[in-house]
Amino acid sequence: MDNLDLIKQISITSPGKIVLLVIDGLGGLPHPGTAKTELETANTPNLDRLATQSICGLIDPVGPGITPGSTPGHLALFGYDPVKYNIGRGVVAALGIDFDLKPADIAARGNFCTVDSSGFITDRRAGRISTEKCTELCRLLDEIKIEGIKLFVRPVREHRFAVVFRGEGLPPEVSDSDPQQTGVAPKAVKAKHAPALRTADIANEFIAQAGATLARHQPANMVILRGFSSLPIIPTMDDIYILKPVAIAAYPMYRGLAKLVGMTLLKTGPAIADEFDALKKNYTDYDFFFLHIKGTDSAGEDGDFDRKVSVIEEIDRALPTLTSLKPDVIVVTGDHSTPALLKSHSWHPVPVALYSQWCRPDRVGEFSEQACVSGGLGRLPATQIMPLAMANALKLAKFGA
Amino acid sequence: MDNLDLIKQISITSPGKIVLLVIDGLGGLPHPGTAKTELETANTPNLDRLATQSICGLIDPVGPGITPGSTPGHLALFGYDPVKYNIGRGVVAALGIDFDLKPADIAARGNFCTVDSSGFITDRRAGRISTEKCTELCRLLDEIKIEGIKLFVRPVREHRFAVVFRGEGLPPEVSDSDPQQTGVAPKAVKAKHAPALRTADIANEFIAQAGATLARHQPANMVILRGFSSLPIIPTMDDIYILKPVAIAAYPMYRGLAKLVGMTLLKTGPAIADEFDALKKNYTDYDFFFLHIKGTDSAGEDGDFDRKVSVIEEIDRALPTLTSLKPDVIVVTGDHSTPALLKSHSWHPVPVALYSQWCRPDRVGEFSEQACVSGGLGRLPATQIMPLAMANALKLAKFGA
Repeated sequence: MDNLDLIKQISITSPGKIVLLVIDGLGGLPHPGTAKTELETANTPNLDRLATQSICGLIDPVGPGITPGSTPGHLALFGYDPVKYNIGRGVVAALGIDFDLKPADIAARGNFCTVDSSGFITDRRAGRISTEKCTELCRLLDEIKIEGIKLFVRPVREHRFAVVFRGEGLPPEVSDSDPQQTGVAPKAVKAKHAPALRTADIANEFIAQAGATLARHQPANMVILRGFSSLPIIPTMDDIYILKPVAIAAYPMYRGLAKLVGMTLLKTGPAIADEFDALKKNYTDYDFFFLHIKGTDSAGEDGDFDRKVSVIEEIDRALPTLTSLKPDVIVVTGDHSTPALLKSHSWHPVPVALYSQWCRPDRVGEFSEQACVSGGLGRLPATQIMPLAMANALKLAKFGA
Repeated sequence: MDNLDLIKQISITSPGKIVLLVIDGLGGLPHPGTAKTELETANTPNLDRLATQSICGLIDPVGPGITPGSTPGHLALFGYDPVKYNIGRGVVAALGIDFDLKPADIAARGNFCTVDSSGFITDRRAGRISTEKCTELCRLLDEIKIEGIKLFVRPVREHRFAVVFRGEGLPPEVSDSDPQQTGVAPKAVKAKHAPALRTADIANEFIAQAGATLARHQPANMVILRGFSSLPIIPTMDDIYILKPVAIAAYPMYRGLAKLVGMTLLKTGPAIADEFDALKKNYTDYDFFFLHIKGTDSAGEDGDFDRKVSVIEEIDRALPTLTSLKPDVIVVTGDHSTPALLKSHSWHPVPVALYSQWCRPDRVGEFSEQACVSGGLGRLPATQIMPLAMANALKLAKFGA
């Protein structure tokens, strides 16, 4: 039995409210000069006070050693097995631009690329054309007609775009055209099973027409596609947990993910304080709040240790807006680590603090990677956070007699 | 999906080198006089320094409470689920004597035993005859002819031997003749399914001829066989991790296991310093090094607490040969515990230290069972060590978008 099946069986309603604060890319690595991580460097009196009243630990979003993308990192926090519910790259790209995907749609992630006169790829990113240029070219490709389907081509950023094929009875199981290398021609899209033959034909026709359309648009004179996928069949959080969940997230991709699991999306300004204000304004109307802060991850990806420290301090200053609402359960954690030293997502486990009146606090007195090693939660899979939050909100009935 | 399938999907090549130092039977139990284990008693400045720079923890080779044999202990360290890949005792016996098993061969582990005039077993080990006597008797049994197959009988040690049946289309699923008790006759070997009927006939014919051959060789006047098995179908480490793996091990059994998962076998002398020298000599040619030290386990099995301490100290003295090579990742651990107080393998989790530039060191300042309890790795299955080593060598791509 899947863990979610068990949780679904014993979920009950209670007046308790849960706030899940996700500090994207929270975990870090120690700065060589100070031996302190970003979180350990930041001055965080409010997070430290919360950690003192909480039970703490370290979570593995997918598993030890596995570096998660944003999607598996978040799905795990929402309680879903991120390997079982592996969302395709095309769907993630479409969610990331707030495209309103329908259940039968097939989405793929596209690159504009450069091919030479023999059709061999010389640059998989077409010299990283500007987002403006990408937008202009997507408008051209959006005009392509293929019988029996409707298609949408939308810019993402620089050379990246998303394409969505809307038709009837199109399975998404087809291979990439992107060969993931230069010096070869884009591959033909191939069906992985017989029912997907038509999907492959449609994709190949789109690629052929795109090539013709782009021929005089050097360096962006071709496209390569990957990650053909459809919306997964995934139970909603309301269905599993009997919650009324809501998302407060400024970035489209996280709004898309939240929508995927059935959350209502709240309006919010882009600043950290805006998001905390949105929580305060809507606090009476829901019982599960996913509050997503992006700035830590962006700073980590940029390798900007100091900026990541600043963003954490800004979150700490905003925290009283959250704690003064006195939620029954507060979880503070991240979807993965993004150490500034690595300039990328990483496999390192993420600190977590879970506060509730019933949490059985441990001796952890500060919110940091080092301190959380000794926390009462130990080191655990991120998928266990939702059951723990539910239990602490008195929303899980006894299992068995 | 099996964890290995996931790891295989995301494994990439990088220049990083990984050294896995396996101190066989490393974990121990505290001496009643000092309350310190073998590892805690040993003077190990080099291991302690490495632990300080590492992330530490405790691993369960198979699971809490489960005492592993050498095979599951090592397979888990190489990342294989040791329950899924349970290698038969016959195969392990053949590997242990460096017998060149072919895929269609069936191997069984044999005991010379003593039977009385009624054919009832009076001693399952024939009074533990000498290895010389065993070798002489195996030469006699090796002459047995059975139509349609070729057979090999090879001494192991004392009353133990291995027998290999080489033929066509012989499934290994047959029962033991060893009743695991005295006062009864050896059992007939029985097929577990119809296609194995011929295998059972062959085994029973071998046993009948062996009984006739040995009749006048009291106390070794009969044989009992168990663990009929064939080489498992197991993916190689190269296939999963895209590594070029090599084994430095003096004992045949560990060389056999390493070969089973696709490692190249290096020549090495029997001393600890010889093995470290072999590492140094071959360091440029491979990217994964399995370095196996047997002496700790042997001392533990003998109940010789002090000798186990000495072997650990000898390893510590040799360690700079390894660390001066500056591998990107160093893992020091054991395949299981062998406490001198128990004189056998045990179920206790094994200390592990994982060093890399990216390991996020914890506060553990010495390499010991007690200190590793507070390590940043926590307590984790041994199968997670390879993914962690791979991640720390930057050999695993991101999972999911």
